[in-house]
Amino acid sequence: MIIIGEKLNSSIPSTLQGLNEKNEDFITDLARRQGEAGARYLDLNTGMCGDEKEMLVWAAGLALKAAPGCALMADSTSPGALRYLFENVELENAAINSVTLEEDRLSGVLPLVREFKTAIVGMPIDGDGIPKTAERRVENARKLIAILRENGSADQDIYIDIVVEAAATGWDAPQKALEAAQALRGEFPDVHLLVGLSNVSFGLPRRGVINETFLACAMARGVDAAIMDITNPSMKLHLRAAEMLFGQDEYCMEYLNAYRETEQ
Amino acid sequence: MIIIGEKLNSSIPSTLQGLNEKNEDFITDLARRQGEAGARYLDLNTGMCGDEKEMLVWAAGLALKAAPGCALMADSTSPGALRYLFENVELENAAINSVTLEEDRLSGVLPLVREFKTAIVGMPIDGDGIPKTAERRVENARKLIAILRENGSADQDIYIDIVVEAAATGWDAPQKALEAAQALRGEFPDVHLLVGLSNVSFGLPRRGVINETFLACAMARGVDAAIMDITNPSMKLHLRAAEMLFGQDEYCMEYLNAYRETEQ
Repeated sequence: MIIIGEKLNSSIPSTLQGLNEKNEDFITDLARRQGEAGARYLDLNTGMCGDEKEMLVWAAGLALKAAPGCALMADSTSPGALRYLFENVELENAAINSVTLEEDRLSGVLPLVREFKTAIVGMPIDGDGIPKTAERRVENARKLIAILRENGSADQDIYIDIVVEAAATGWDAPQKALEAAQALRGEFPDVHLLVGLSNVSFGLPRRGVINETFLACAMARGVDAAIMDITNPSMKLHLRAAEMLFGQDEYCMEYLNAYRETEQ
Repeated sequence: MIIIGEKLNSSIPSTLQGLNEKNEDFITDLARRQGEAGARYLDLNTGMCGDEKEMLVWAAGLALKAAPGCALMADSTSPGALRYLFENVELENAAINSVTLEEDRLSGVLPLVREFKTAIVGMPIDGDGIPKTAERRVENARKLIAILRENGSADQDIYIDIVVEAAATGWDAPQKALEAAQALRGEFPDVHLLVGLSNVSFGLPRRGVINETFLACAMARGVDAAIMDITNPSMKLHLRAAEMLFGQDEYCMEYLNAYRETEQ
C-alpha cells in the first residue's frame, strides 16, 4: 500500500494551531513520525490558515527536511498557492491533491501537472457533487482518466479517490465506493485507487474499528493507496495484517515488526 | 453474514473436557452464548471424544435446546456417526461439515445429504490434499458443486469452504483462498462461500487482528458464511462494521448494538 500521512492538514484543529503559531517543533514532529511509520507521501493542507501559500511553502520545507524519505502531496484547491509552492520549494515526486471534473478546477490544475510533472489525485466528482451511484463514479473516473492521459500523465501517476462518505449519514454510501473501486480496478490496472479513510467513520463510535475494517475491504477491492493515520499503532497493525493476507508480506516480517511496535 | 459458532468442537481442549465429563451446564452455556451472539448454525464436532456418535447425539440435544434459534452443523468425517445423529435427533435445517472430492468421503456423505435433506459444506480438496493454487481450488470447487447439484442439492444449500491456511506457514496461502473466493463468487452467485477463520492466524501474535482483517477481506471477495467466535465482542464488532460498510446494515443499527455490547 502507498501510505499518505494525513496529519499535516489545517482542518485538524491542533495542526491548524501549530501552523498558525509557526510551531517548528510541532510540524517537524508530525512529519517525522509519519515518515518513520511508513508514509510515502505527506499530505499537506494549509487551506484554513491565514495565508495559504506562504504557509504551504513554510510547512513543506520543514516537513520534507524532517521526513527525507517522503514526497509531498500538496492538498489545495488554489492553483495560485500550488504554483507558488512549486516555484519556491524544490520537490521530487510531488503529487497534487486534488482535481475534479469541474471545468474551473481542471483548467487551474492541469497546467501545473504538466509543468511540474506531478502525480495527481482525481476525484470523480462533477458539477452535481458526489455521485449517488457507483456507476456514475466509474463514469466520472473514466472521464477524468481520459483527460489526465491526454494531459500527459502516465497511469501510474494518476490516483483516483473513490470518495467514501460517512456510513452514519448514508448507510449504503461506503458500499458504493467499494463497488466503484472494484469496477475501476478491473478497467484500469495501472491507475492507483485511493481512499481517504477517516471520513467513513464520522459520527459513529469506535472509529478506529470502522477505519481498519474499511481499509481491508478497500484493499480487497483493489485500492492501493490510503490517506490515513499511519502513526496509530493499531491502524498500522491492521494495515500490515491486510498486506500479509494479500500475499504482500513475505515471511510476515512487516506484520511482526508492526506487532512489536504495538508492544512497546 | 451467516455465522457458524465454532465453540462446540472437541479439538478445543476445554470443550473436549466439557464433553467427556458430560458437563451439561458447560455445553448448554457454550451453545446459548453463541446463539445469543447471533450464530445461525452451531458447528458440533465430537470426533476427539471416546464415542463420537453417542456424544454427537447427547450434545446436539442439549445445544439445540439451549439455542433454539440455531440449526446444527454436524462436523464429522464419519458417515456412521452422522447417520446415527440424524436418526436419533430431530433436526431442522441441519448441515453437514464437510465433504471433499475424495471418493470414500463422497460415497459416505452424499446419501445422507439426500436422505436427510441437509445443507452441505464442500471442501475443494482432492486426493492430493489442499491445492497449492487458486485455480486448482476453483476447479475442485466446480467439480464438487456439479456433484452436489447432481445429488439434488440446491445452490443455496451448498457451502464451499475456501480452505484458508495459516499465513505463518505459507505467507501467500491466504491470498490464494481470497483469489479462489473471488472467482467462485463470480461463477456461482447463489452458492455460499465459507471461511473457517481461526486457521489463518495460527502461530502469529495478535490473532484477533488477523482474524478480523481476514474476515473483512473475505467478505469483500464474496464470502458470506464464517465459522468463527461470535462470542468475542471485538470480533463481532468488526464483523458488524464490515456488514455496515457493505451496505447490509440499514441505519447502522447492528453496528451500534455490537458497540453497546463492547461497552458493557
